[in-house]
Amino acid sequence: MADWQEISGGITAPRGYRAAGITAGLKPSGLPDLALIWSDVEAIAAGVFTTSQVKAACVDYCRQRLQAKHSARAILCNAGQANAATGKQGVQDAEESAELLARELNILPDSILLASTGVIGQRIKMDALRNGIPKLVAALSETGSDAAARAIITTDLVTKSIALETTIGDRPVRIGGIAKGSGMIHPNMATMLAFVTCDAAVSPGLWQQMLARAADRSFNSITVDGDTSTNDSLIALANGQSRTPAITEVGAEAEKLEAMLTAVCQHLAKAIARDGEGATCLIEVQVTGAHDELSARQIAKTIAGSSLVKSAIFGRDPNWGRIAAAAGRAGVPFEQENLRIQLGDFLMIENGQPLPFDRPAASAYLKQAAVNYPLPKDFVATNNSNDLSGDRGTIKAQRLDNPVIIAVSVGNGYGSGKAWGCDLSYDYVKINAEYTT
Amino acid sequence: MADWQEISGGITAPRGYRAAGITAGLKPSGLPDLALIWSDVEAIAAGVFTTSQVKAACVDYCRQRLQAKHSARAILCNAGQANAATGKQGVQDAEESAELLARELNILPDSILLASTGVIGQRIKMDALRNGIPKLVAALSETGSDAAARAIITTDLVTKSIALETTIGDRPVRIGGIAKGSGMIHPNMATMLAFVTCDAAVSPGLWQQMLARAADRSFNSITVDGDTSTNDSLIALANGQSRTPAITEVGAEAEKLEAMLTAVCQHLAKAIARDGEGATCLIEVQVTGAHDELSARQIAKTIAGSSLVKSAIFGRDPNWGRIAAAAGRAGVPFEQENLRIQLGDFLMIENGQPLPFDRPAASAYLKQAAVNYPLPKDFVATNNSNDLSGDRGTIKAQRLDNPVIIAVSVGNGYGSGKAWGCDLSYDYVKINAEYTT
Repeated sequence: MADWQEISGGITAPRGYRAAGITAGLKPSGLPDLALIWSDVEAIAAGVFTTSQVKAACVDYCRQRLQAKHSARAILCNAGQANAATGKQGVQDAEESAELLARELNILPDSILLASTGVIGQRIKMDALRNGIPKLVAALSETGSDAAARAIITTDLVTKSIALETTIGDRPVRIGGIAKGSGMIHPNMATMLAFVTCDAAVSPGLWQQMLARAADRSFNSITVDGDTSTNDSLIALANGQSRTPAITEVGAEAEKLEAMLTAVCQHLAKAIARDGEGATCLIEVQVTGAHDELSARQIAKTIAGSSLVKSAIFGRDPNWGRIAAAAGRAGVPFEQENLRIQLGDFLMIENGQPLPFDRPAASAYLKQAAVNYPLPKDFVATNNSNDLSGDRGTIKAQRLDNPVIIAVSVGNGYGSGKAWGCDLSYDYVKINAEYTT
Repeated sequence: MADWQEISGGITAPRGYRAAGITAGLKPSGLPDLALIWSDVEAIAAGVFTTSQVKAACVDYCRQRLQAKHSARAILCNAGQANAATGKQGVQDAEESAELLARELNILPDSILLASTGVIGQRIKMDALRNGIPKLVAALSETGSDAAARAIITTDLVTKSIALETTIGDRPVRIGGIAKGSGMIHPNMATMLAFVTCDAAVSPGLWQQMLARAADRSFNSITVDGDTSTNDSLIALANGQSRTPAITEVGAEAEKLEAMLTAVCQHLAKAIARDGEGATCLIEVQVTGAHDELSARQIAKTIAGSSLVKSAIFGRDPNWGRIAAAAGRAGVPFEQENLRIQLGDFLMIENGQPLPFDRPAASAYLKQAAVNYPLPKDFVATNNSNDLSGDRGTIKAQRLDNPVIIAVSVGNGYGSGKAWGCDLSYDYVKINAEYTT
């Protein structure tokens, strides 16, 4: 059904992009911590940022830049320090970062966008950044997507990357994306970040609208623990280097591009949910029959975010009562007599009436979603567990196609929506209760 | 400052009330599971119920009764089966329960209110209920509060009870209360329930308003995991047996009564939060400087409900970044430059700027809130762990006076509000991931 195919190359799959990721010494662990995405030409730029009242300096910086002009050539991202709640000094550090990079790239600072992730309240280690920037620019490469993807992660167990290709006007158009976020937000190593590159030509207003809708259907529909970060940022560039006809109005081509953009964002969002701290499986909640998409998504998100539903799934307990209770408290009116809940193939409640079902088989269904992904016995959760070696990363990525499916219908409306989450395990608490300095 | 004193007797401390709690065989464990509260005369009745779209039969039943008339003589509560999502049969069971009790008490069924707690999707065991009702009525006693308090609990580790006394028109007036709820809601053994008795004479409209405001400042300001139950109910009776002048309008006496009602509700609410599944300490979040009370409470609840804040406190980690992040995402606008966060005596951020503080001492502050209450080594969490023996109950009750205090100011407004919660421990997941049949 999908009108595109997956290709390799991540954010450097679209034409006219280069990327780099290096170790600049920002993370105490010595792992890669500085990333750069570069477009050969000035690209249309759109962004969606955290709605938190407590925002990192980079978020204010990007919002101002994108209000002043809707284009950019480079995105600089540091990991290790969030530069949030760092006051005026943090603002100065952000501006200096952009100026340093602009000088090195020989462009104006207002063509640079910024993102940070790491410990809240900590300034960026500016000495390390100053020393790192020339190395970073020198490392820019047309195959640099993986290096960049590694340099933006913090508590993530795996990197997140995707590239899709379709045709517009008989020519190939590509969208690539990388993301970080260990399920949600781990404010100690804060933030959900995603960077998207596209080589289509599209008008700035349309691109921003597409990105906002795609974000609602992906990153804004995942939940690990409900905590929104100070630094959450989604930035998307479109540089026109596919040489396809410019998309300037709503229509079939705009729809095609938006659908592919949404697919890229959903892939990254699901990868983030699946990599939730301590998670053993991905959960997809599908809600239908609501008044509108927003209501459906609201119910889906409430179920996916319920600690009790998440704990039950970790315990392989087909506990539809918790699903019903979460649906009921989502703040969306519906008639309890219309409630229908299905877990995988197991219909558990219809017309508001509980049905008999094969409980051991339903429990086995929950088990199999995680069965190929046992937590490694030697798993030690740390804030810097970026170990990507072995089969773990590969297996995790593969398991995106095998979520636990919770299907809920609340009536006869046409509104449907999805949300993604993960189960709540002992390890979530272990990771987040760790005393960190 | 408080204009009242604590007295013994719980819900039977006010004049003209009797209570009972018996084992009727509804709980598989054989523990007490049927409670009755009885007023010697028809009492003014007010109620606050779950806002969930998925509601137990007893909730609809009480709402209808209280709409038709604002008085009652008895509250019947069963534990073991929630009678939620049980369809039309559940409604019939609720009505039959009221009729059976009415016959035994020789009153009309419309003077009876109902509450249920237990497994969602399970009908009340009507045979056991039918056999139990005569025994229950026979057990009514002026010292029956403790028995009733024990018969309404499910996963609770301790019973929750309080009685306060003040004077109105130079005569004593008393309010008593009992509650259940293991922190929040454990939908498998669902629900927050609270029953309040008062011997003042007060007009129905005023009593309902007082109760709604008291609920907002107490039960609606606690959070353990954000899950609202299908059965949550707060019912308050006022029977006038203190023979004090009737309170029929706003004024000094109404304020005095409402303040004491709020104190009763807050005590019970804090006891519920402290008894949160797996909790090791009570957390009190105090927010000041907001535009209004509602905004302040919203921020307080978001902080108290943040899984990341709760995990950090369990880990004894004075992580103000997580507190700032939670405040920021509460949906209440404020200027980050006005943010002030204090943990106990430790000022951590002022005017939006992080301050140096003694981190080991702050961690020690978090430790001491729990230090006298280690989880027993032999603690085995089950859905029926109603063991009230030994020092656990006593110590838990005592520790209400020693919460972890998080004080947050967001500006110069006059709005202030509080919320209560508990930390998030391994045991929360263990309790809720348990495979239950």
